[in-house]
Amino acid sequence: MLRVLTSSSVFLGLQVAGWVRTMASHQLLVAPPEALHGPLSVRSWLLLGPGPSNVAPRVLEAGRLQMISHLHKEMYQIMDEIKQGIQYMFQTRNSLTLAVSGSGHAALEAALFNLLEPGDAYLVGVNGIWGQRAAEIGERIGARVHQMIKDPGGCFTLQEVEEGLAQHRPVLLFLTQGESSSGVLQPLDGYGELCHRYQCLLLVDSVASLGGVPIHMDRQGIDVLYSGSQKVLNAPPGTSLISFSDKAKSKIYARKTRPFSFYLDVKWLANIWGCDGAPRTYHHTPPVVSLYCLREALALMVEEGLESSWKRHRETALYLQGRLQALGLQLFVKDPELRLPTITTVAVPAGYDWRDIVSYVMDHFAIEITGGLGPSTGKVLRIGLLGCNATRENVDRVIHALQEALQHCPKGKL
Amino acid sequence: MLRVLTSSSVFLGLQVAGWVRTMASHQLLVAPPEALHGPLSVRSWLLLGPGPSNVAPRVLEAGRLQMISHLHKEMYQIMDEIKQGIQYMFQTRNSLTLAVSGSGHAALEAALFNLLEPGDAYLVGVNGIWGQRAAEIGERIGARVHQMIKDPGGCFTLQEVEEGLAQHRPVLLFLTQGESSSGVLQPLDGYGELCHRYQCLLLVDSVASLGGVPIHMDRQGIDVLYSGSQKVLNAPPGTSLISFSDKAKSKIYARKTRPFSFYLDVKWLANIWGCDGAPRTYHHTPPVVSLYCLREALALMVEEGLESSWKRHRETALYLQGRLQALGLQLFVKDPELRLPTITTVAVPAGYDWRDIVSYVMDHFAIEITGGLGPSTGKVLRIGLLGCNATRENVDRVIHALQEALQHCPKGKL
Ligand SMILES: Cc1ncc(COP(=O)(O)O)c(C=O)c1O
Ligand SMILES: Cc1ncc(COP(=O)(O)O)c(C=O)c1O
Repeated sequence: MLRVLTSSSVFLGLQVAGWVRTMASHQLLVAPPEALHGPLSVRSWLLLGPGPSNVAPRVLEAGRLQMISHLHKEMYQIMDEIKQGIQYMFQTRNSLTLAVSGSGHAALEAALFNLLEPGDAYLVGVNGIWGQRAAEIGERIGARVHQMIKDPGGCFTLQEVEEGLAQHRPVLLFLTQGESSSGVLQPLDGYGELCHRYQCLLLVDSVASLGGVPIHMDRQGIDVLYSGSQKVLNAPPGTSLISFSDKAKSKIYARKTRPFSFYLDVKWLANIWGCDGAPRTYHHTPPVVSLYCLREALALMVEEGLESSWKRHRETALYLQGRLQALGLQLFVKDPELRLPTITTVAVPAGYDWRDIVSYVMDHFAIEITGGLGPSTGKVLRIGLLGCNATRENVDRVIHALQEALQHCPKGKL
Repeated sequence: MLRVLTSSSVFLGLQVAGWVRTMASHQLLVAPPEALHGPLSVRSWLLLGPGPSNVAPRVLEAGRLQMISHLHKEMYQIMDEIKQGIQYMFQTRNSLTLAVSGSGHAALEAALFNLLEPGDAYLVGVNGIWGQRAAEIGERIGARVHQMIKDPGGCFTLQEVEEGLAQHRPVLLFLTQGESSSGVLQPLDGYGELCHRYQCLLLVDSVASLGGVPIHMDRQGIDVLYSGSQKVLNAPPGTSLISFSDKAKSKIYARKTRPFSFYLDVKWLANIWGCDGAPRTYHHTPPVVSLYCLREALALMVEEGLESSWKRHRETALYLQGRLQALGLQLFVKDPELRLPTITTVAVPAGYDWRDIVSYVMDHFAIEITGGLGPSTGKVLRIGLLGCNATRENVDRVIHALQEALQHCPKGKL
């Protein structure tokens, strides 16, 4: 059929022709993967490793709320609530308090990228993997890194820290409150004051301890504190908590160089978290749904109260320690005051391969426990009682599983 | 009652005394925030801005699945499926393909941190905000950045790129396929080949275009391609997709310096994503639940098929363009072939304040549309039809809302 084309149908015709041509040159080289045809399903686990922990039911529900824009007022409200929740958890009034869009390591990088400039002297307490990581990141960004090294199981006394400060005159000291690879609880009273006498800032990792052990950022003079979402808070991994004292903030705002990272630039993060008084602008898209979850996790902590949570973790850990000892197992950390309530380390029992025990407990009971990490690898088994997982019932379950494992795993293999 | 204490009850007594003492010094300075007493609720929005988009129902369900450990075999399986899904989306057979634990900007930093060393010459096509950001990050890490600058609305021809390559001899060129701030679709055929003739690698941002517009990483000779989860894929923000060609991989593995970031070090990420053949070890905790969501989003794309998705986005965008023009509005991108199907830019109608229109549509219809961003601010309105939101019904809804806005918003104010 022949007919006169109007200019607009000519135009449409050209578009369709273009589209057909485009399609022909767009044949797929890579076929749709078979593995993605079925739906996702995940088995149910009791996660009693050093984290991630199980997600609390109320937090799970938040995980399937529909998206809103990160630039809506409603989202700003949620972010403000998260800020207040972090201030409560950290016991701080710092205005520069926010959640980082990444895991615990992203928070550590946010701290180091923003606080250190190339050439800055930086002192690190290394008594397990976290100090190693904190030192490595410092090296990557060109700081002069000084390590105080201890075997896993140890912590740093005020005197040792003072010697390090006097010798190296660092601008920043890194300590880990809950050394989850060794199970050590680093005392923190007096360290901030000491650092400040030496014009040094104090950076503390509380990823594995926050909510399970007392911490008082302001009273203890901690300048930068960070933590994770996937431990005591029982939220999914993907966000982390961080706060900066006025001293830390001053150092950041007086930098001569820009931080290497734009994504983790605290001046930008301060803006999107409403910490700098300026109108919020677009920086990056934060993980909106993970922030819903974090908000609910913080609300649960407010509901229980920090003191109750600390008490529950301590009591449950003491119960676990007693039951482990009753099984004839040795706790890895000798001094009871230095035992981390959230993550308990047990010396690998003589004659066993730790891998056998871990596999037995996982395969027969769907309970996760783990071996060591970094310097503690091969030395310990680790059992975490984190947040809603810190119950006597869970202790009974894991003790039963361990008992069975010790009976059935090969002995004398090593 | 007096009785002889056994040594273990003495010990317990000391522990309790210690606990009481500890508690006394641990009084809370910061009270639980009022705002966290109520439960979270979010209003329902139709997100027709440039992203994030609404989350697809099946993806929402994945968001409340219980955690598993990131170091379990089941998680490795999910990660392998994600890898295959990305290879399909990108149309690549690159083994170094993975999801980054952060937003689109984190993927961009992963690309630049790993590909560039201080002093490397780096050429950036800047025709909107994304080139500006890519240039800024290059500067932060000490690359010699050369910008080819265009007004928003333009894209880069092969000839222009060749001039830049010949003049600056860069090791890397950055281009944005879907310039979401201006609504421009950058053609990509021939650019990879051209770059390779000049010993330059090609890095492409497909955050706003992937799944909505054809892309063929291998066939087009793209060396590094990245995208986001929260646009056409309809997953929550918090993860991003990236892949490296063998040429890009060689450059990374031949670096003289370590990348500044440990969190985004591709050698480590290659390991945890099973891309390097070595046993997987712990690097950081990836966002497990966000990865469930990404897996389901990729599965939905496999179900629909890439070609159908491209076609649906194109057809819906053409329908939107027609309806906008019928309202008397001007499309910002003049050449129909250069219009991005996923995000349509409309010139702000004369006499109106763009803020009034955006607010009207949001307040009266709970539909998100936005103004411009970076260099396009004040010039455009942006309407996104991303993934499951790309339907004629949604076009009708937003057109109706715009029509009302144009009737009721003050005119002649500017
Ligand atoms: C004490 C401590 N610091 C830092 C981290 C690192 O956190 P992520 O794995 O979330 O990066 C962990 C994680 O286990 C930890 O236990
Ligand atoms: C083209 C493009 N590149 C990069 C980004 C940055 O992604 P994100 O906000 O997830 O960091 C966006 C986000 O809108 C985008 O549209």
